[in-house]
Amino acid sequence: MLVGLAFATVLFLVPYSASADDLPSWKNGASKQQVTNFVKAVSTEGSGDYIPATDRIAVFDNDGTLWGEQPMYVQLAFALDRVKSLAPAHPEWKNTEPFKSVLSGDLAGVAASGEKGLVELVAATHAGMTGDEFSKIAGDWIATARHPKTGKLYTEMVYQPMLELVNYLKANDFTVFIVSGGGIEFMRPWTERVYGIPSQNVVGSSIKSKLEHVQGKPAIVRLPEIDFIDDGPGKPVGIYTHIGRRPIAAFGNSDGDFEMLEWTTSGAKRSLGLIVHHDDAEREFAYDRNSHFGKLDRALSASKTQGWTVVSMKNDWIQVYPQ
Amino acid sequence: MLVGLAFATVLFLVPYSASADDLPSWKNGASKQQVTNFVKAVSTEGSGDYIPATDRIAVFDNDGTLWGEQPMYVQLAFALDRVKSLAPAHPEWKNTEPFKSVLSGDLAGVAASGEKGLVELVAATHAGMTGDEFSKIAGDWIATARHPKTGKLYTEMVYQPMLELVNYLKANDFTVFIVSGGGIEFMRPWTERVYGIPSQNVVGSSIKSKLEHVQGKPAIVRLPEIDFIDDGPGKPVGIYTHIGRRPIAAFGNSDGDFEMLEWTTSGAKRSLGLIVHHDDAEREFAYDRNSHFGKLDRALSASKTQGWTVVSMKNDWIQVYPQ
Repeated sequence: MLVGLAFATVLFLVPYSASADDLPSWKNGASKQQVTNFVKAVSTEGSGDYIPATDRIAVFDNDGTLWGEQPMYVQLAFALDRVKSLAPAHPEWKNTEPFKSVLSGDLAGVAASGEKGLVELVAATHAGMTGDEFSKIAGDWIATARHPKTGKLYTEMVYQPMLELVNYLKANDFTVFIVSGGGIEFMRPWTERVYGIPSQNVVGSSIKSKLEHVQGKPAIVRLPEIDFIDDGPGKPVGIYTHIGRRPIAAFGNSDGDFEMLEWTTSGAKRSLGLIVHHDDAEREFAYDRNSHFGKLDRALSASKTQGWTVVSMKNDWIQVYPQ
Repeated sequence: MLVGLAFATVLFLVPYSASADDLPSWKNGASKQQVTNFVKAVSTEGSGDYIPATDRIAVFDNDGTLWGEQPMYVQLAFALDRVKSLAPAHPEWKNTEPFKSVLSGDLAGVAASGEKGLVELVAATHAGMTGDEFSKIAGDWIATARHPKTGKLYTEMVYQPMLELVNYLKANDFTVFIVSGGGIEFMRPWTERVYGIPSQNVVGSSIKSKLEHVQGKPAIVRLPEIDFIDDGPGKPVGIYTHIGRRPIAAFGNSDGDFEMLEWTTSGAKRSLGLIVHHDDAEREFAYDRNSHFGKLDRALSASKTQGWTVVSMKNDWIQVYPQ
């Protein structure tokens, strides 16, 4: 006990050191080196690339970058589950698309209903309740829902190397944000617990909302109308709206992150753009240019000329999921 | 020198204490007591009202709460100055409202142009450039523009007691946000320097923007179209969008803060609502129910039944501006 205490004290007194391995799940190699070189350069006072902590903003995509997105986006699995839960109160859904296809498990039929179908799905499952009610629904679902293939909780299928990266950046006085095409209020109930990223540091797609009095008390009510799509060219706009300045580091995995990566890495300051490449069929999934979810084509082709780091999940990561 | 060092060391070793006066510009009295009682109750572990740091969210209105708003909102002074600067390139403005009235110094004429005039004023002065360009314009202006009556920089006309309050809350692990009817990008260039509140913790009204390539590089371009009005019932919506949860403390000074105060103080947790009452004609300005800017009528009448603290600038503040 005393020895343990003394040891802890010694550890505590050792100043934060670049030689300590903050990224133990990353293999030593070019990808890891590019990340640590960048972080050291911008956070070392006196370095030519030094950037004050206020401007050390890092943005992470969520689906496919911090957690899995196969065989479908987790939020889509949530929406489908919600339709099934709500179906008894909506007998008309048996004959109305996209609900009919959802209830019969026909994903191709859901996809065929297009953007109109998607908006109806969002309206039926994400709107028509207060903000507090939706947070509880999303939080309760994520606490128990499991991946169809692995049987794990979705929140157990987050990427350990990326969690280490988030913590490494925070330890170097970066402010870390999620910037996702996913729904902002679907993520907020659990990002603090799972990633250590609080609700105010989550940027995402949103539906409209308004203030109403519900049972005599003011409440935010969620409306069945898309407000903002935080994907592709929407990501820099979402960052500008929520954060108010250009990040110096961006992490993504698909073409939906192209503009965020490009905007981040075309500023005057030193910057880092990084793409997680899903090339590990054995431990996770292997997909890129032809995938329905998380298509990575244009951004992969541009990575060399843009100077973006492409991380191979298979070769650069010692471990994929937390243990 | 050595004595000074030793003294500093002793100060450093004294743990944060409730008896130290964190609010030296506040007179000891009911208002100050209500603030400190609240902060102690929610931040003392074991207290029945204890609230974890993650949920200690405090929101401050800006105009009239953190800095002055008389004889007009500072941002309106900025817009009028911008019209004068841009006028040589717009000879047609001499005969077009609201510009004609602005150029002839006829504020009643500007007001008479109504919402349509205001939108045109915003479009001409706040849009049509990149986000970086607008930040520079706003930052340069605020660094030199002076109040017509006092001759002080506007950023010197911030309220010292409120700066102390922001710091006091931060020292007690609150996360502090500005939630203003003013333009979000007008405030962001200087809130960190003046208030210690970073750009990502500023919520405000906004115009639309989009991503474009300007001279071959991606840039945010500001569009001449209102996106969101963060005032009145818009404030809880702005908070929900940007922060994602209900605050436990709200600070305002006008009817535009009513809904923010009401939503904040109607949650299940212990909360604090506070109104700054401008009743000090000698040191600042005296106005409330009939003021054109910062009208305080409905919120003042409701303060007693709502349990909101009403701060008298005249009686509760030892000092108004930083010295």
